Amino acid sequence: MRLATLKTGAPDGRLIVVSPDATHYAEAPVPTLQAALERWTDVADTLAATSEFPHPLDVRALAAPLPRAWQWLDGSVYPSHGALMDKALGIEPFKPDWPPMYQGVSDTFYAPHADVPMADPELGIDFEGEFGIITDAVPMGTGIADARKHIKLIVQINDWSLRKLAGPEMKSGFGWIQAKPPCGMAPFAVTPDELGEQWQDCQVAAHLRVHWNGAQFGNAWGAAMAYGFDALVAHAARTRNLVAGTVIGSGTVSNENYREVGSSCIAERRGIEVVDTGAAKTGFMQYGDTVRMEAHLADGRTPFGALEQTVVKP
Amino acid sequence: MRLATLKTGAPDGRLIVVSPDATHYAEAPVPTLQAALERWTDVADTLAATSEFPHPLDVRALAAPLPRAWQWLDGSVYPSHGALMDKALGIEPFKPDWPPMYQGVSDTFYAPHADVPMADPELGIDFEGEFGIITDAVPMGTGIADARKHIKLIVQINDWSLRKLAGPEMKSGFGWIQAKPPCGMAPFAVTPDELGEQWQDCQVAAHLRVHWNGAQFGNAWGAAMAYGFDALVAHAARTRNLVAGTVIGSGTVSNENYREVGSSCIAERRGIEVVDTGAAKTGFMQYGDTVRMEAHLADGRTPFGALEQTVVKP
Repeated sequence: MRLATLKTGAPDGRLIVVSPDATHYAEAPVPTLQAALERWTDVADTLAATSEFPHPLDVRALAAPLPRAWQWLDGSVYPSHGALMDKALGIEPFKPDWPPMYQGVSDTFYAPHADVPMADPELGIDFEGEFGIITDAVPMGTGIADARKHIKLIVQINDWSLRKLAGPEMKSGFGWIQAKPPCGMAPFAVTPDELGEQWQDCQVAAHLRVHWNGAQFGNAWGAAMAYGFDALVAHAARTRNLVAGTVIGSGTVSNENYREVGSSCIAERRGIEVVDTGAAKTGFMQYGDTVRMEAHLADGRTPFGALEQTVVKP
Repeated sequence: MRLATLKTGAPDGRLIVVSPDATHYAEAPVPTLQAALERWTDVADTLAATSEFPHPLDVRALAAPLPRAWQWLDGSVYPSHGALMDKALGIEPFKPDWPPMYQGVSDTFYAPHADVPMADPELGIDFEGEFGIITDAVPMGTGIADARKHIKLIVQINDWSLRKLAGPEMKSGFGWIQAKPPCGMAPFAVTPDELGEQWQDCQVAAHLRVHWNGAQFGNAWGAAMAYGFDALVAHAARTRNLVAGTVIGSGTVSNENYREVGSSCIAERRGIEVVDTGAAKTGFMQYGDTVRMEAHLADGRTPFGALEQTVVKP
């Protein structure tokens, strides 16, 4: 099942069920995705049984599948990315035996085709392509095996970042505020069964194809996480209840052979340049620049649809 | 004007206006505080004009004034606390020229008289007494002078912490997830005019009296912040729009003469013990322990009411 949300002017939009070929939709019997997640057990089967899709779908009319959430927790669990970012930011490597995770702004997830306002192009505007999951309510202390059952939807995320603010904020130990404006989401949230065998140990077995101003920038493989999403959910729930509609991200998709497959964010390419030549030569995004991200499963399907966002002056 | 929220079973409760002597209330013409903050300009005068308070008030029937928020950003801007915590946690001091701030869980603020479930008493359960403000919508890039106008309400907060997890999470640079379960709020949210001259340069000129299991633990002075709340709002809004209902905290109230006035959290007392004797001797909270926090203005008034919370097994 694929779900999406129509823009309506209201902050939570209108939940729709998308046809298998992603050309049409039906209005869901529940008004919003947040409402559906709050009573998922009661509504999931009904949503999945949708068989008539009367309305033609225009992806430009879509909001993020979850246009705002009560909680957004972002991991960073692709080891090749973490190691490079430590070098690029001049951070002393700290290797915890748990997944690094921060809490970010969740009152806005930008629409898949949004113009995204950024305060200042001098701040190092960067995209970060990643995967994420959305849970129902998860009780405090839920273990990894049970955590898996609380993963109701999978999404594809663009975690916007301002790199020149990231290093100092990280050094404060408090995590990021200014360096992390709201994220964007690709058009469709999908249930795990939609990925079939390409949902592997709670990871997305897909290439995340990233284009910057039309040129391919990265094509990294998703199923290379040091921790599956089940472990991320359990980590987050150790000392708090997770509210229904909690979104948890993987961090930038990255592979050890990044020189061949490319990167899902500019900072990683710059990190490679620093390692290889002593200096970064690739610049960051400017007003008017566009990033496109689309995940391709091994069987060729693109379950989340394409995110395509443009950086604009506020 | 003092506002509060009745528990109703619904997540946002029912907004009420509290009588000047805090013994009675009137139901507000707007159902929830979140709704009021989203159209503050339209409703503030009406709320403030309430003159009939027909219902007797039982503070145990109150939820947090804002029982959940789309965003909770917590500063740490009492210099004496920051310096001690660096020592106690073994963190290399990092002195940014901006206010340290993290984003925390905001889907729950515990009621003033809540039993607060904590995962494990071995994790170093601690209270943190602080002040906070609630904004209406703040546009990205708002400067300090304008930020002040967006401070609509002032609250008193207990920022629950799990100290044994705090140091390692801080070292990761990602900020705190497991070390920071949801906070609690004192009964009443007040408008700045309610504090009068005791709202000084966007700081609360009050003593925050903290009792742990009935014994006074701290009586620190609020107006000792290195940055006023106006500066904290502007900092938070530099690269993002702040949604109406954003809550921003001061961090633990602390004074340079903490040996005389005491502390607003256990970690600070332990830090003093480490500095003075080489080892911390005060333990953390256990199941069944209670903390009480009440701010006293110079004129003797206690505008936020008393928070009194008990730690319990989940």
